[in-house]
Amino acid sequence: MNHPVIHQSFTIERCYPTSAERVFKAFSDPAKKRRWFAEGEGFVIDSYSLDFHVGGSERTRVRCGEGPSMTNDCVYLDLTLVPDRRVVFAYSMTIGGAPLSSSLSTIELLENGDGTLLRMTEHTAYLDGNDGSAARREGCLELLEALASELSNHG
Amino acid sequence: MNHPVIHQSFTIERCYPTSAERVFKAFSDPAKKRRWFAEGEGFVIDSYSLDFHVGGSERTRVRCGEGPSMTNDCVYLDLTLVPDRRVVFAYSMTIGGAPLSSSLSTIELLENGDGTLLRMTEHTAYLDGNDGSAARREGCLELLEALASELSNHG
Repeated sequence: MNHPVIHQSFTIERCYPTSAERVFKAFSDPAKKRRWFAEGEGFVIDSYSLDFHVGGSERTRVRCGEGPSMTNDCVYLDLTLVPDRRVVFAYSMTIGGAPLSSSLSTIELLENGDGTLLRMTEHTAYLDGNDGSAARREGCLELLEALASELSNHG
Repeated sequence: MNHPVIHQSFTIERCYPTSAERVFKAFSDPAKKRRWFAEGEGFVIDSYSLDFHVGGSERTRVRCGEGPSMTNDCVYLDLTLVPDRRVVFAYSMTIGGAPLSSSLSTIELLENGDGTLLRMTEHTAYLDGNDGSAARREGCLELLEALASELSNHG
C-alpha cells in the first residue's frame, strides 16, 4: 500500500457580529472551545484537552454512536506575530486507529465594520488514498456555524 | 500589523540511485539528518535535536555568520501509515525571534527502477507579509542536493 498522498486546500470565510477579541477567546478558552468544537450532536467525547500556547497541544477523542474512535491531535505553531488575531496550527486525524490526514490550518480574524471576518485556510494531506476534501470543507463550515451558536449563546 | 497570511505550495522531486530504506534512514537517524539538514556551509549550529516518532520534535538553532539566530521547530505528524516510505511533518521557522512561516511537509519515497524517487510537497503559510516561496523552494532543492551528497559519502 503506497498510494500517493492527496493534497487539497480551501479557504472559507464567515462574518460574526461581535468583536475579534470575543471570537479569539472562543479559540483560546478550553471550556468554550470544547463546547463548539468537540461537543457535536451525536458525538461522545472520550477525552478533550487544550493547552493553548505555541508548541502546546489540543487532543480530542470522540466517537459517533457505536462508530470507531476518532482522534484529532493538534499542535499550535504560531499565536504571537499578530496577537489575538491569528491561530496557526497543524493537526492530524485518525479513525479506528488508522491515520487519515494531516493539515496546516490558519485562522485570521479581521475587522469588518462592527463585526469580525474569520478567514480559515486549510492545506491537507489525505494519507489513505481517499480525497476527503469535500467532506472536510463541509465539516469546517459546520464548525464555523457551531462557533456562531457559541458566540450567540455564551456571553 | 494585520497583513494577510500568504499561502503557497510546491512539489519537487528528485531521484536517488539507492534504496528507499537508505533514503528513509537519512531522515530517521539523528546523526545523518543533522549532517545533511543542519550542517550547511557557513552555518553555525547552536543546537540540534531529533526525536523521530509521531508527536516527536526536531529542533534546529543555527546562525549564518554574524546573522540573527534562526530556529526551525518540527513536529512529526505521521510516519506509520506507509512505514519507512513517508514522512509527514509540520514545522515553524523564526528569524531573530520573529515568526516567519509555518509549513506542512510530506516526503514520499517511491520505487523507481533500481533507485528511489523522493517527492516533497510543502504547503506554507508565510506569516510576516512577505512571500518567501521562491527562496523556500530553492532552499529545499539545496537540501535535496545535500541529501544526495549524504547518500554518496556515508554508506
